[in-house]
Amino acid sequence: MSLRPVVALAGGVGAARFLSGLVQVVPPQDISVIVNTGDDRDFFGLRVCPDLDIITYTLAGCIRSDTGWGLAGDTFDCLGALRRLRSDTWFQLGDQDLATHIHRTARLREGASLVEVTREIAAAFGVDVELLPMTEALAPTRLLRRDAEPSDFEEYLVRDGAPDDIEEVDLSTAGSAAPAPGVLPAIDAARALLICPSNPVVSIGTIRAVRGVEERLRARRDAVAVSPIIGGKPVKGPADRLMRAIGAEVSALGVAKLYQPIASGIVIDRTDAQLGPGIEALGLRVRTGETLMQNARISRELAALTLELAMEAA
Amino acid sequence: MSLRPVVALAGGVGAARFLSGLVQVVPPQDISVIVNTGDDRDFFGLRVCPDLDIITYTLAGCIRSDTGWGLAGDTFDCLGALRRLRSDTWFQLGDQDLATHIHRTARLREGASLVEVTREIAAAFGVDVELLPMTEALAPTRLLRRDAEPSDFEEYLVRDGAPDDIEEVDLSTAGSAAPAPGVLPAIDAARALLICPSNPVVSIGTIRAVRGVEERLRARRDAVAVSPIIGGKPVKGPADRLMRAIGAEVSALGVAKLYQPIASGIVIDRTDAQLGPGIEALGLRVRTGETLMQNARISRELAALTLELAMEAA
Repeated sequence: MSLRPVVALAGGVGAARFLSGLVQVVPPQDISVIVNTGDDRDFFGLRVCPDLDIITYTLAGCIRSDTGWGLAGDTFDCLGALRRLRSDTWFQLGDQDLATHIHRTARLREGASLVEVTREIAAAFGVDVELLPMTEALAPTRLLRRDAEPSDFEEYLVRDGAPDDIEEVDLSTAGSAAPAPGVLPAIDAARALLICPSNPVVSIGTIRAVRGVEERLRARRDAVAVSPIIGGKPVKGPADRLMRAIGAEVSALGVAKLYQPIASGIVIDRTDAQLGPGIEALGLRVRTGETLMQNARISRELAALTLELAMEAA
Repeated sequence: MSLRPVVALAGGVGAARFLSGLVQVVPPQDISVIVNTGDDRDFFGLRVCPDLDIITYTLAGCIRSDTGWGLAGDTFDCLGALRRLRSDTWFQLGDQDLATHIHRTARLREGASLVEVTREIAAAFGVDVELLPMTEALAPTRLLRRDAEPSDFEEYLVRDGAPDDIEEVDLSTAGSAAPAPGVLPAIDAARALLICPSNPVVSIGTIRAVRGVEERLRARRDAVAVSPIIGGKPVKGPADRLMRAIGAEVSALGVAKLYQPIASGIVIDRTDAQLGPGIEALGLRVRTGETLMQNARISRELAALTLELAMEAA
């Protein structure tokens, strides 16, 4: 195992877009990404790892661009046929996408580790960034809800459409999960430690919950984050609902407060510049930039700015 | 469990076409089919049961007609994507077809029996014939070969193109397998017992090898078979190679000799009429008819003729 100088903590679509910028400013061989697996689950016996796949497909350049997940041009014939046989077919799994899940499941059942399988899949897609699942264990985030049964994250997000009914975020399975081999050494050895613009509660928060991770991050306290909240709203996904559920303010300042114990800096959108002094008062360095990653140039510039802030700290 | 009056032993494509005729002359609710599962195997962790599926899809009217297997109009996007990840992708599994295997595998892993899952799949496809796998166990036929490693049947047939190199047919896994619940009672209770035009060695032979089956068939000795050999050649598949491998003559007479211990009659193609006296000398009643099932009418007439011969015996 060779340790890589740039290490990022990552969740789904926002992280994937950020990382697609990062590989334009750092050789992919120099980047390790610790990826949230708290949203992983089995569908019809197949292990689906949404964040790992979103990042793999994005870095491979074959992501479906309108949604940010799934494969470009994928079809849904298998899922259509499954509907004849089953009722739990609410998660959109395309025919080519299913190949990833079938292969992963087969390899896991053969005894391969998730780290190995993830490496094999990345290699097959020509992705040179190292993707490290946060843990080998299945450690689903559990959401306790006002008007519904407790749900895992995909049930909440995809099946139920992410209503504003979360009462409690239960990360206890991640809390009792061992970090995957390579995760803690990667954090320890990083020259630059980045936190992608991901959901701070159920993506980054879940990674932080894994045994030993938060301790290492606090020991360094030099991560540099990108706020996923712009103008008080998440770019995509239910980060606002999740942040409210844990009592956090839905703003770049609220994000900064969550990251204060582990971070030395944060990049916020230039439209949130007025929040800068408040964040600096928390002891964090602040940079403002364009953070809505609508194209490859913006992703690249955002990654460069974030990396610069992290290297400055080093 | 209600026992059905018409019971057929069946393999793949020929059996499926015959059964599609049989349901035109007998209500499907009156038919049980004991299906060879000796060709079953896992592909990428998914349980594939070729003969069960060929029969289900054929009776559902959605079989791909040019091949006799797979689903009409199916696409192969998942398999194409799997090729990027794996090398064992030589078996043609379509996107919609995969749904069957994914569902079956998931249900088996949940603890459902193959009998139950088969019933569920048949119901989802609107098939009222009862399909009984010969056994719940995975009992692969093993072929010992002159110029290749020992193979299972699909490796031999599909991967290697069915060369003429078989030295020995090893049915020992079937021999030590327990019959699936319902198989022996179905045989015992049948008013008409039919042997579909299937490979007599690795389809019907495999069913006969299952513990207790041959004994029950011999006790009755009133099955009526349809010869899958016409003019000294199989209609489809490698029955000639398999018959030669066990020292049988590749002809309707050779088929009759194989079935002599369990049958009271056989339907042969009218082009083989000259073999009738030799078969009768074995103690079997013979009918000649059109056995090359090129359309629904021929299938229906062949089924009617076979059933008539069986009922005559009863």
